[in-house]
Amino acid sequence: MDFHDASRYPRGVRRTSLAEMPCPVARTLDVVGEWWTLLIVRDALLGARRFEDFKATGIADNILSARLKRLVEEGVLERSRYQERPDRYEYVLTEKGRALGPVVQALRGWGRRWTTGEDLSPTPVHTTCGHEPTLAYACPHCNRPIPPDEIQLTRR
Amino acid sequence: MDFHDASRYPRGVRRTSLAEMPCPVARTLDVVGEWWTLLIVRDALLGARRFEDFKATGIADNILSARLKRLVEEGVLERSRYQERPDRYEYVLTEKGRALGPVVQALRGWGRRWTTGEDLSPTPVHTTCGHEPTLAYACPHCNRPIPPDEIQLTRR
Repeated sequence: MDFHDASRYPRGVRRTSLAEMPCPVARTLDVVGEWWTLLIVRDALLGARRFEDFKATGIADNILSARLKRLVEEGVLERSRYQERPDRYEYVLTEKGRALGPVVQALRGWGRRWTTGEDLSPTPVHTTCGHEPTLAYACPHCNRPIPPDEIQLTRR
Repeated sequence: MDFHDASRYPRGVRRTSLAEMPCPVARTLDVVGEWWTLLIVRDALLGARRFEDFKATGIADNILSARLKRLVEEGVLERSRYQERPDRYEYVLTEKGRALGPVVQALRGWGRRWTTGEDLSPTPVHTTCGHEPTLAYACPHCNRPIPPDEIQLTRR
């Protein structure tokens, strides 16, 4: 079985290689697939902005710096100075960054079902009614939410 | 701002530390957050079973072996022998593994909108009608799909 045309994929484990793959899943992971990155996005979605806010997760300073820099380069976060002498910056999600909300929620949904432990994770709230929405498949044809076992993935 | 009670988080970047965090997003990333792992899951969702199938992505043999072993240990994949002398094994998603479908679809949705390149990614199909469903927020109270800008994340 050949699930992907291997010749199209650059060889090796060089991380940037995912950016060139003919698959949006791979290209997304190129941007947010590094260790810690999606936890930084999770915290940003909850309102974290400053270096100290993001540090609360337990990430080392040098790794946090590198991840924030990359996310700014990718347009997921926007950096702005909030203090001079010494200069200090805060990091705010762009539209592109806020669009990662469903990724974080999908991870959360799986973790709530399939891992055990305390749950201090971000809860989505529907701002117009205050209720908690779920992330689910919806079929435009059937016009109803679809349970995952009615979904099959196919190759394009 | 203290987005998480830092004292609850083990310090350092030791990868297994995420397993102990009081957040299902973190615990999910502990299982599937290593580089390449979600591409292996993507391929398994498309029907990849054998070592050679998974290699098509361009992952190095030693890394693929380590990732498959971990996913079996975590109960995401089940390993079964399909040939003797020499023994050869195939890897099939468990229910826990198939439940990662929405994670892969959320990554795909973001990549389709925010990255550029060819798209040979897996398309979800609603098996009972043949149409392509979308992954979207649904509010049980409002009984309609909710656009992401009507969603706000809040701390539990």
